[in-house]
Amino acid sequence: MNGLYHLGELSTAMVERLAQRALELRRGVEPLRFPGRGLGLLFLSPSLRTQASFQRAAAKLGLDLVQLQSGGNGVWQLELEDGAVMNGTSVEHIREAAAVLGRFVDVLAVRAFSGGKDLELDLADPIVAGFRRFAGVPIVNMESALWHPCQALADWTTMDMLGVDRRAKFVLTWANHPKALPHAVPNSTLAMALQRGMDVVLARPEGYDLHPSALAEAKRLASASGGKLTITSDRNAVEGASIVYAKSWGSLEAWGDAEKEQRMRAALAHWCVDAQTMQRAGPNARFMHCLPVRRNVVVKDEVLDGPTSVVIDQAENRLHAQTALLERQFLELEMQSKGKRSSLELQEVRP
Amino acid sequence: MNGLYHLGELSTAMVERLAQRALELRRGVEPLRFPGRGLGLLFLSPSLRTQASFQRAAAKLGLDLVQLQSGGNGVWQLELEDGAVMNGTSVEHIREAAAVLGRFVDVLAVRAFSGGKDLELDLADPIVAGFRRFAGVPIVNMESALWHPCQALADWTTMDMLGVDRRAKFVLTWANHPKALPHAVPNSTLAMALQRGMDVVLARPEGYDLHPSALAEAKRLASASGGKLTITSDRNAVEGASIVYAKSWGSLEAWGDAEKEQRMRAALAHWCVDAQTMQRAGPNARFMHCLPVRRNVVVKDEVLDGPTSVVIDQAENRLHAQTALLERQFLELEMQSKGKRSSLELQEVRP
Amino acid sequence: MNGLYHLGELSTAMVERLAQRALELRRGVEPLRFPGRGLGLLFLSPSLRTQASFQRAAAKLGLDLVQLQSGGNGVWQLELEDGAVMNGTSVEHIREAAAVLGRFVDVLAVRAFSGGKDLELDLADPIVAGFRRFAGVPIVNMESALWHPCQALADWTTMDMLGVDRRAKFVLTWANHPKALPHAVPNSTLAMALQRGMDVVLARPEGYDLHPSALAEAKRLASASGGKLTITSDRNAVEGASIVYAKSWGSLEAWGDAEKEQRMRAALAHWCVDAQTMQRAGPNARFMHCLPVRRNVVVKDEVLDGPTSVVIDQAENRLHAQTALLERQFLELEMQSKGKRSSLELQEVRP
Repeated sequence: MNGLYHLGELSTAMVERLAQRALELRRGVEPLRFPGRGLGLLFLSPSLRTQASFQRAAAKLGLDLVQLQSGGNGVWQLELEDGAVMNGTSVEHIREAAAVLGRFVDVLAVRAFSGGKDLELDLADPIVAGFRRFAGVPIVNMESALWHPCQALADWTTMDMLGVDRRAKFVLTWANHPKALPHAVPNSTLAMALQRGMDVVLARPEGYDLHPSALAEAKRLASASGGKLTITSDRNAVEGASIVYAKSWGSLEAWGDAEKEQRMRAALAHWCVDAQTMQRAGPNARFMHCLPVRRNVVVKDEVLDGPTSVVIDQAENRLHAQTALLERQFLELEMQSKGKRSSLELQEVRP
Repeated sequence: MNGLYHLGELSTAMVERLAQRALELRRGVEPLRFPGRGLGLLFLSPSLRTQASFQRAAAKLGLDLVQLQSGGNGVWQLELEDGAVMNGTSVEHIREAAAVLGRFVDVLAVRAFSGGKDLELDLADPIVAGFRRFAGVPIVNMESALWHPCQALADWTTMDMLGVDRRAKFVLTWANHPKALPHAVPNSTLAMALQRGMDVVLARPEGYDLHPSALAEAKRLASASGGKLTITSDRNAVEGASIVYAKSWGSLEAWGDAEKEQRMRAALAHWCVDAQTMQRAGPNARFMHCLPVRRNVVVKDEVLDGPTSVVIDQAENRLHAQTALLERQFLELEMQSKGKRSSLELQEVRP
Repeated sequence: MNGLYHLGELSTAMVERLAQRALELRRGVEPLRFPGRGLGLLFLSPSLRTQASFQRAAAKLGLDLVQLQSGGNGVWQLELEDGAVMNGTSVEHIREAAAVLGRFVDVLAVRAFSGGKDLELDLADPIVAGFRRFAGVPIVNMESALWHPCQALADWTTMDMLGVDRRAKFVLTWANHPKALPHAVPNSTLAMALQRGMDVVLARPEGYDLHPSALAEAKRLASASGGKLTITSDRNAVEGASIVYAKSWGSLEAWGDAEKEQRMRAALAHWCVDAQTMQRAGPNARFMHCLPVRRNVVVKDEVLDGPTSVVIDQAENRLHAQTALLERQFLELEMQSKGKRSSLELQEVRP
């Protein structure tokens, strides 16, 4: 394991092992501890769950924690472009920021949302890509422009916890929201459910497709697992679903154009999960969402506060999934450095 | 103990025990340690002493620390209203924020000042109340709209340290300030001194009464302890005081109306504790203030830098009082979970 | 050791010892641990390297860490002036802020850049000076208006690591930049190279002298070490240099006058270190910079990405140098308090 950018990079066997370990940790098993090892957390975008759960995970693993935020008296504004003449507002190039932080910690976790203005730039996922390129240590993606693998691992764990069948129906439904949100979560949710081999329905209004590259990656994973993908604009296509997973995201057709986005959404307020949706889905259906969630816009109180909602357990699993992930990552680093140390010792005993 | 919202919730015997423990810790006794237990600190309002002292207390107790702030790349703006249609600026409902953080830590401490605009809202103390309602773990109030119990416990500890008689005279005097400040500290100071059974004088100009509900709570505590409350508009009513405790707060009559507040204060600049005040109080008088303090507006340099001021010891006692409080809280959690574990073990050995 | 304000306060023997220790730590030697001791980090100015490296150093030394930032919901705005009537925007006087934090930790590290507006104020270095005056505990300067001793110690360490001769040629060259930057780094770099006894060339355009007081301190150190200082406006005076150290800083003649500064710089864009500069310097020359650096303004990509650049190692040495410094500081505190405890024990056994 060399960090984690996108859950689909991991073999399904590895994802299963991590999810099982996460559930052991949830039941109170103590994780391994790695005294003297360092984890860095760099937040270039806001966070509640991610910040809290990574901090706690680091403490559980006995790691030295380094925490940085942008803004205020936090870290400097980063330049991302190669060859830039830095006479503007960016104070430090990502080449130096990444390389230096890579000297201070053994693993670096980074959060950097899409800007939502320049689609091509967002598709390059430049900040997390830059850290992966220049840090020299494993990078854990705490949500980039394109992927949110820790959420996906927590969601997988949650379905294991609930005993959801690997072939069950999983509906990812677009939802209304006052703003155009990034695609990292829907991309990751879709890919995760298909890597799991599920019968996936992606329900979204016309104009709200995910990007072809994300769809292609989801289909690649589906073809390996036997998962099935149906795309529909029928928000009621939930019959028989085990999971109704709501999420809002912005239209690729209106990227960076807030007015067009508002016009497109004017008639979409009914894309909100309510009791009727859950009833239509059937008696086994559970409601999932990554949080934070806009109540009574994305989902009605009656669902969120009702018995089908598992969003709090799902959020708790962020902690356990990330602890399992970091435990594995640091264990592999320990083994590598023991390997190195053994060969060093060999060299040292040579005459 | 199930967190701490207001010091008066605790029995006087418990407050005495915590204050004595705080003084032991101050003398260098090591607190108990709770490895594997987690404390969350959530700052929705600014802080120096509180932040620093809670961080250090957590470290002394060996706790896993999770720290969050609002603003910048910190936590999301919270919605407080039940049933809200969240299509505005609030990104996350306190129901989810509280419930999720309650899954990541064993005890959560929250700071959220009054907004100072809508009195009814402030009297409902909605943020800390929301966390108490939804977090599912004990909530420690690090200063809410209405109460600042950790300050009150530190102040009690400070008077024990100074050997102040339980029936001594305690003057809480309003002071001038460029802004209308919240009532959490004066409410808590008054209630604390009366719970202690002291001869309390509340000196404030006309128009600067504390809220009837806070006064009623203070009187309830006084009637149990034999404490005595006199309210006066004579700022010189300090004769024979053991403690002169200065604090500024806004007028309930001008809540949210900065102009009216300024008009009311125009003639109140003399409400500033000076050497003459302390001399009038007499040879045993000590000066207290919760800090931060506006020098030469609330109190003159000559007092703050003179021998009667105990404000730095008082601030130091924040650390020891909070360490004692958290030690007690986590000890009780340990005992509860041992209880739980014992019954679990019983279940597990059943055939 | 009573904190560290300016590297030149330390004897050269002590600097050498700390640099050697830093290199041991770099090679993987474990530092001493000081459980139960507390370190505070107070950031009143932005930081990436400093924040990350001090956090990691604290963890390596097993210290209780207290971290505070100004801005947002961080610490209050500080008043610096003695006797101020605080009816403006400053909420807390540095006297209280320093004294209180000094009660919560054993050593306090502070970062506070120069304001860049009022030269006289900046020359008084009022924030770090205030903490040194009022905190009652050792203060480590994490970059003040005038000095950046941790950078200087890391730079010394880096030259030891590279085996740079103590009499070698060291060129500190001014560089262009879109903004007028503080003098803390150039002051510290110059003084450090001269304390080391090097053959120092300070190359800067007319109008970009360092302050006479900083130059006097540098010369004082040079006269003790046998170091040599040449000041020139020839940016090509690099022949035979072992180190080319680039840094931009503002003109004392234009302090606080951004327009004048821009006019002065209009013709200075060629003050940028490029491949030709390094070639002219010769085959042994290494490029150093404290970071963050404006690529292609201060130094060309061809240098920063080439084999002569040691900026990432230099940044890594911040961690090791600071760990060595704090280890020494806490060791001395331990020895002092053992001394105190011994005499306390003596008192206690007396009848």
